[in-house]
Amino acid sequence: MLLKNYLKMNEILIFKIGGKLIDDKFLLNDFLKKFSMIKSPKILVHGGGKKASKLSEKLNVEVKIINGRRITNKTSLEIATMVYAGELNKKIVSKLQKLNCNSIGLSGADGNSIISKKRENSKINYGFVGDISFVNTKFIIELLKNNLTPVFCAITHNKKGQLLNTNADSIASEIAINLSNDFKTKLFYCFEKKGVLKNLNNENSLIKKINLNDYKDLIKNNNISEGMIPKLDNCFYALKNGVNKVTIGNNSMLINKKDFTELKI
Amino acid sequence: MLLKNYLKMNEILIFKIGGKLIDDKFLLNDFLKKFSMIKSPKILVHGGGKKASKLSEKLNVEVKIINGRRITNKTSLEIATMVYAGELNKKIVSKLQKLNCNSIGLSGADGNSIISKKRENSKINYGFVGDISFVNTKFIIELLKNNLTPVFCAITHNKKGQLLNTNADSIASEIAINLSNDFKTKLFYCFEKKGVLKNLNNENSLIKKINLNDYKDLIKNNNISEGMIPKLDNCFYALKNGVNKVTIGNNSMLINKKDFTELKI
Repeated sequence: MLLKNYLKMNEILIFKIGGKLIDDKFLLNDFLKKFSMIKSPKILVHGGGKKASKLSEKLNVEVKIINGRRITNKTSLEIATMVYAGELNKKIVSKLQKLNCNSIGLSGADGNSIISKKRENSKINYGFVGDISFVNTKFIIELLKNNLTPVFCAITHNKKGQLLNTNADSIASEIAINLSNDFKTKLFYCFEKKGVLKNLNNENSLIKKINLNDYKDLIKNNNISEGMIPKLDNCFYALKNGVNKVTIGNNSMLINKKDFTELKI
Repeated sequence: MLLKNYLKMNEILIFKIGGKLIDDKFLLNDFLKKFSMIKSPKILVHGGGKKASKLSEKLNVEVKIINGRRITNKTSLEIATMVYAGELNKKIVSKLQKLNCNSIGLSGADGNSIISKKRENSKINYGFVGDISFVNTKFIIELLKNNLTPVFCAITHNKKGQLLNTNADSIASEIAINLSNDFKTKLFYCFEKKGVLKNLNNENSLIKKINLNDYKDLIKNNNISEGMIPKLDNCFYALKNGVNKVTIGNNSMLINKKDFTELKI
């Protein structure tokens, strides 16, 4: 159809949004507006915010969390699929369409785009949670070539008929890593804060650059919040595996070049 | 990516599934197995079955029906989006992937595939219900050319940021009509019964062929169930507008050439 302009793609930008950015209508609309204006080929990955927990509550389904990780049984997978792949994904896609960004919402099952394996070798039984084993870059590149913007939710599949709940940060980093074989890839983790803060309650405590040594020091000195550690692990993993640039910040990261955290190895 | 075999597509088959076929796991799996074995380019459109009503009940959301038509307020649209575009659509796609049918789940917002207009000029205010105004055949053909099987749920959008609940029978017929400009199209309405029955409780009362005159007689003599009338109107509308063949039947319609209802103008 539109196989024309993209014979040469210089770079692909991958954005992950999560946290309050999903739950707050104003922040989400602001993000999508800025995102839609980006001209480079781009991909959006979204988390679920608090909506799945809220629906679970309404349905009297217990939300089980062990060591900060949600346990996904059959019912909570159904809820996650409804909220992430249904309500949120389609809401985001329809908003982007309004902004003339021709987006397409995807779970990992769609176009067999992301295959994952149920997490088995763990002391904790996480239930229907998947770790990514394959990213269908051919399919994703074909969409980008056709001027489509893929919008991934945090649901993948195992190619054996089972959907699996999958960490959205990992989806974003695995997509970026896999595309980095053929393209320059930039990965943006976007949420409601300016970036990595020394003091969670003080936006002025932004750390603008973190390299691997800084990171080790931050952990050693207890200068980093616990929730940020798996995110930063993900960032450094991406950089070590070919992603060209990784940054963490809020919506202003999309338009200015200053106030965010850049990771370096 | 796979732009190769489909330079010439002879015919496109469009299947709509609904009713008990969606709610009954055995029937659905049987349908998907037969569907996945079809070699022609094909499209699936699915209704919602009873799942949306069941979820509404669990959430204590009143299901409002006037003259047999569901009224869609903001909450029931959210529920429909979760169930149709989320749970059901992704379940069907993951099952098809298991069967090596490379499917892709879509709402009308995805790839701007189906635009509809909120139904306004009606005595009854149906709420967030859309009537189709545009089918993006270029996008759909591109997917088919790439060996992808589109799986549409009954949610469309108005291109202005609003999702709309849309009748799945109409989605199937409008897709078939729009594709019939360039391709031979065959439309199959598949549910749990053999086809149009003279006596709803007797599968042996199957009417194998109905033309427009037969249809008028059937209505005049009260020989047709009320629920079947909008479906048959849809069928004749499709035939009048270029669709080559329209049949109604159960899963066996996919493998034999006998026991179903064929519509003729």
